[in-house]
Amino acid sequence: MTLYYPDGRPYKDNGSLGGRAETSAVIYGRRGMTLEEDLNVTNQFYLRSDQAVIYKKPTPIQVVHVDYPKRSAAKITEAYFRKPSTTDYNGIFKGKYIDFEAKETTHENYIPLKNFHEHQVEHMERIKRHGGIGFIIVKFTPDDEVFLLDAVFLSECWKLSLRKGGRKSIPRKLFEDKGYPIPQQYLPRLDYLRVVNRVYF
Amino acid sequence: MTLYYPDGRPYKDNGSLGGRAETSAVIYGRRGMTLEEDLNVTNQFYLRSDQAVIYKKPTPIQVVHVDYPKRSAAKITEAYFRKPSTTDYNGIFKGKYIDFEAKETTHENYIPLKNFHEHQVEHMERIKRHGGIGFIIVKFTPDDEVFLLDAVFLSECWKLSLRKGGRKSIPRKLFEDKGYPIPQQYLPRLDYLRVVNRVYF
Repeated sequence: MTLYYPDGRPYKDNGSLGGRAETSAVIYGRRGMTLEEDLNVTNQFYLRSDQAVIYKKPTPIQVVHVDYPKRSAAKITEAYFRKPSTTDYNGIFKGKYIDFEAKETTHENYIPLKNFHEHQVEHMERIKRHGGIGFIIVKFTPDDEVFLLDAVFLSECWKLSLRKGGRKSIPRKLFEDKGYPIPQQYLPRLDYLRVVNRVYF
Repeated sequence: MTLYYPDGRPYKDNGSLGGRAETSAVIYGRRGMTLEEDLNVTNQFYLRSDQAVIYKKPTPIQVVHVDYPKRSAAKITEAYFRKPSTTDYNGIFKGKYIDFEAKETTHENYIPLKNFHEHQVEHMERIKRHGGIGFIIVKFTPDDEVFLLDAVFLSECWKLSLRKGGRKSIPRKLFEDKGYPIPQQYLPRLDYLRVVNRVYF
């Protein structure tokens, strides 16, 4: 539903991968691309075309032991993944600080809140309070639809989930009602800054 | 020279660690703190006092092999450090995107340019072009003086260094003439945002 031809016309997906594959060799080739891969390619495109400077932060890793072999690179032999205290992506676009988290869900109609951490929710609330732009990007893998949703809605769902019997997920309907579908195309693959530009500027 | 008493009065250092230690148990306790530790404590202070949201990015690590033992955390058993493509620190202050790199030098009167990477120089040039604030923070460990210097001067020194016979370092004099000493005190330890606030706003 949010695929676009290179000239900007929207492409109405018939819902099967086969249909899409017949339409475009490029989109066919993208089957199996993760949201993270798509965003990395997109951010590289933004960087090269000088539209924005946005990077994914490295995964935080606790290094415990490092070997220093002679004449070769230091080798980490014991380390552990740490939980990130911020979001994965940040940078600058049109003079504004941009901050977001990106997640995939295999569920058709919701994304479980356990995909996010409390620290991330608080982080995005801070960012917004300080004048930055904060949102989440969520891909629903059953139909490959990708949405942008302002961080305020994540905060609201988070608060509701802490109540007794509160819903532990964000319904897709909220993305459809309050969020924005992100155009998917050849380049940039996931043109989320087109949405940001329309919504926040 | 940039030590401050908690009430804001500047403290004139006599140049010996002993002198400082006698003056303040707190500052005595800080001997041996690295620039990175001081900045981390400072950024935590800014975060808790809700003045800014600035983090050090995790060190980029290339993970090659991970073990998944039963009933315990995934253990990385082979990984390597990667060269960062951006600076170490970024975030938001008073609605503005902030980006900087922090380095120590053991030389009294200069910092070698090999402390920085070409990617980082280009990154800060991009940040400034997009309306962000970009600078370096350099600590001269022989006298513990810390300076903030706008990224444009790093770029200039970098370009000069590429010429035949060009100087391969940034002279301390440039920090003294075009940069700003950063106040060192109890909390925040390295109040670089006081300088940023004065210089960029």
